Amino acid sequence: MQFTSEQRLDCGVLEREFVLGEIPGILWTPGSASAPAPLILLGHPGGLHNMRPRLAARARQSAEHGFASATIELPGGGDRPRFAAVEQARADLLRTLRAGEPVGEEIIDRLVLPLVEKAVPEWQAALDALLALPEIGGPVGFSGGVISIGVRLAVVEPRISAAVLFAGSFVPRAMFEEARRVTIPLHVLLQWDDEGNDRQAALDLFDAFGTKEKTLHANLGGHTGVPQFAGDAAGRFFLRHLS
Amino acid sequence: MQFTSEQRLDCGVLEREFVLGEIPGILWTPGSASAPAPLILLGHPGGLHNMRPRLAARARQSAEHGFASATIELPGGGDRPRFAAVEQARADLLRTLRAGEPVGEEIIDRLVLPLVEKAVPEWQAALDALLALPEIGGPVGFSGGVISIGVRLAVVEPRISAAVLFAGSFVPRAMFEEARRVTIPLHVLLQWDDEGNDRQAALDLFDAFGTKEKTLHANLGGHTGVPQFAGDAAGRFFLRHLS
Repeated sequence: MQFTSEQRLDCGVLEREFVLGEIPGILWTPGSASAPAPLILLGHPGGLHNMRPRLAARARQSAEHGFASATIELPGGGDRPRFAAVEQARADLLRTLRAGEPVGEEIIDRLVLPLVEKAVPEWQAALDALLALPEIGGPVGFSGGVISIGVRLAVVEPRISAAVLFAGSFVPRAMFEEARRVTIPLHVLLQWDDEGNDRQAALDLFDAFGTKEKTLHANLGGHTGVPQFAGDAAGRFFLRHLS
Repeated sequence: MQFTSEQRLDCGVLEREFVLGEIPGILWTPGSASAPAPLILLGHPGGLHNMRPRLAARARQSAEHGFASATIELPGGGDRPRFAAVEQARADLLRTLRAGEPVGEEIIDRLVLPLVEKAVPEWQAALDALLALPEIGGPVGFSGGVISIGVRLAVVEPRISAAVLFAGSFVPRAMFEEARRVTIPLHVLLQWDDEGNDRQAALDLFDAFGTKEKTLHANLGGHTGVPQFAGDAAGRFFLRHLS
């Protein structure tokens, strides 16, 4: 991991861009950290540049609790090389949606499963590098979407202690089985009127999670309309589990 | 309203029993109130004596935010005269459940609607009396179940500004229509594994509410297993809307 830029935000948070091999990422660390900080991995739908203001806002909020935050670009996202299999599936998805047809499981599988397969090891490699920094300690949380990436990480990555999952993307059927194997505490956010999201699938996925502590917070509004108080509640979930 | 007993709890909260005509009730006021306090009406399934420890715990927590809390016995509950229509419906319900048969809408209507019809004016009379006390100011919230009583109160009682509704009881079909007319902020608690509750009906009711701010908090566990952090979150909802 190589840092490529560094700036101190007005709130005191240190924001550093890095590359991990070919993968760009951003690390935010609290201004005044006396001990190695817990870490939150910030998931997103891809396209770091566009997502950056919202990710930075989440990172600043977590820094108030003494948490570091980090994110990496998704395979095929932003300036990374196109991910042909997923591009094709996305084109098929758009065509299906435009035609007003139901989105079949086959398209969802082709859209999401390759992304999960490729992204999860990258997140794990980022975790290796981040936890090697003296200013990062752990425990580690995952926050955001793509929800299937969060689910897979919760299953295969024992260093992740708790997750805030954003139910806002298509979920392949295979992930429901995987969800049963999740045992860490979960806090699931669902935007009730998210027109691009299958609400029933989100509820079914919540039901499937095998963990003993899971909470669903559903709020009125569309995909990007998560209310401030819902973000605050997610922050308190991490305070309970990562402090 | 006549006070019949008074004790100061160790946390400083003043707990007073009262009667309103024939209806017994309890009022909790914060130990150190400089100004008239906002008020939370504590709903419950009936049987004040058995519910008292849990209601007192909720009242003590609200008193930390400077809120007064009050509750009254339900029609047919505790030592109040039996409510023949509801008793018969309850007996029919138990027989149906024991036989493993589905609970028909007709029984739910007979069980809940007369209770709503009789209880809501009683809560409104209690509100008249409570708001006449110099130590109670407002705004007013409703917290708890029976959820249909909370829904009706939210529709017909303009002095109620916000409600925490506990989705844990049968809901007559007619209440779904009524739910569309609710316009105050709502915070709905759902216990995901509440064996005596119809989860889908609770989700449908949440969907039906006409208000612009509604949040659903679903947690793992049975009817009485609401986690402490979920109670805290409900408290913060009232802090946002009653302070």
